Amino acid sequence: MAKEKNYVSEAVMRRMPKYYRHLTDMEKAGIERISSKELSKRMGLTASQIRQDFNCFGGFGQQGYGYNVSELRQEIQKILGLHNEYHIIIIGAGNLGQALANYTGFEKDGFFVKALFDINPRLIGMSIRGIPIYDIDEMESFISENEVHIAAICTPKEKAQEAAEILIQSGVKGIWNFAAVDIAVPNQAIVENVHLSDSLYTLSFRMSDD
Amino acid sequence: MAKEKNYVSEAVMRRMPKYYRHLTDMEKAGIERISSKELSKRMGLTASQIRQDFNCFGGFGQQGYGYNVSELRQEIQKILGLHNEYHIIIIGAGNLGQALANYTGFEKDGFFVKALFDINPRLIGMSIRGIPIYDIDEMESFISENEVHIAAICTPKEKAQEAAEILIQSGVKGIWNFAAVDIAVPNQAIVENVHLSDSLYTLSFRMSDD
Repeated sequence: MAKEKNYVSEAVMRRMPKYYRHLTDMEKAGIERISSKELSKRMGLTASQIRQDFNCFGGFGQQGYGYNVSELRQEIQKILGLHNEYHIIIIGAGNLGQALANYTGFEKDGFFVKALFDINPRLIGMSIRGIPIYDIDEMESFISENEVHIAAICTPKEKAQEAAEILIQSGVKGIWNFAAVDIAVPNQAIVENVHLSDSLYTLSFRMSDD
Repeated sequence: MAKEKNYVSEAVMRRMPKYYRHLTDMEKAGIERISSKELSKRMGLTASQIRQDFNCFGGFGQQGYGYNVSELRQEIQKILGLHNEYHIIIIGAGNLGQALANYTGFEKDGFFVKALFDINPRLIGMSIRGIPIYDIDEMESFISENEVHIAAICTPKEKAQEAAEILIQSGVKGIWNFAAVDIAVPNQAIVENVHLSDSLYTLSFRMSDD
């Protein structure tokens, strides 16, 4: 499986979470089986596109039966690595960092926020949902003493690159970057960006088309 | 210009905000001119890719000179519709809605949050940075009495589709959807999704590849 993933395109990779989300909702709604036609309608993709996507991972579904929702969800859960548990730390306990820490929805998928870090003395020592806010100076020792898989960078953009470098040197593999800057990282690290301003620019671009 | 935009691919559309962001940073750093080679290094794209992207809009830059940073930034600003002012309302004044309202960084690009709406009586009547939180029942009348271009949906996912329908019927054109659900909208409306859980799934997918 791991080897095959290397050949998965960016587009397929971006669609897998969407399949997972829809399948989770269907399972919750008690749907046991879905035809490829229904699934394609729901996903806004052609049935052939869906087949192609699933073929990247060996293919699922049965001719004439469609897909078993629970089984397919489980397969995609494994592909996405969501059968594992991930520990997250949040760098920057401002509005966005606090909002992420407050949100409980990621826990059902195995993502747990373990600590926040900030430079603001008024925030250090506080906690959010029982999750402590520590001094940024304690970040490296925290990482060495605790298993940290993912760091969400919610700092001002001027601080993001430096934070990422310390995190990666400390052994954190996944960077979830919310700062409005493109972070340069060595190959072994993985950066997933949530650029809210880019998203807003795309929206205004599409809106100005009249 | 508007006509040409119809031929712009999703990939080009997603790169334009990134050009804009980098050019803004360069201008702020006092850089007046950049060679296509330097720009490509900075963007992580080939010079030919950049030329192709810009050709979608008639092309910029001069052979042997490169790009004038301020001029190029201004051109892309216009393409992205960022020379306009946009009024935003936020539906759902929970952690994420409040974080968006608190963030001042969008204002420099002309995006202003005018109001938040919620069903929670403890939040209604409060304000964030002077931006009022109103009862969700007042949303339609607010939209009819004020110019609202964009609505950020920060509700639980079960409420997102209904909210979007009311917003679009009330004349809001742009939906910035943060709920973990794909919203079905009529053609005239534009939805830009920020699916945080999808982003996290993509990160775990790429991390589990070893």
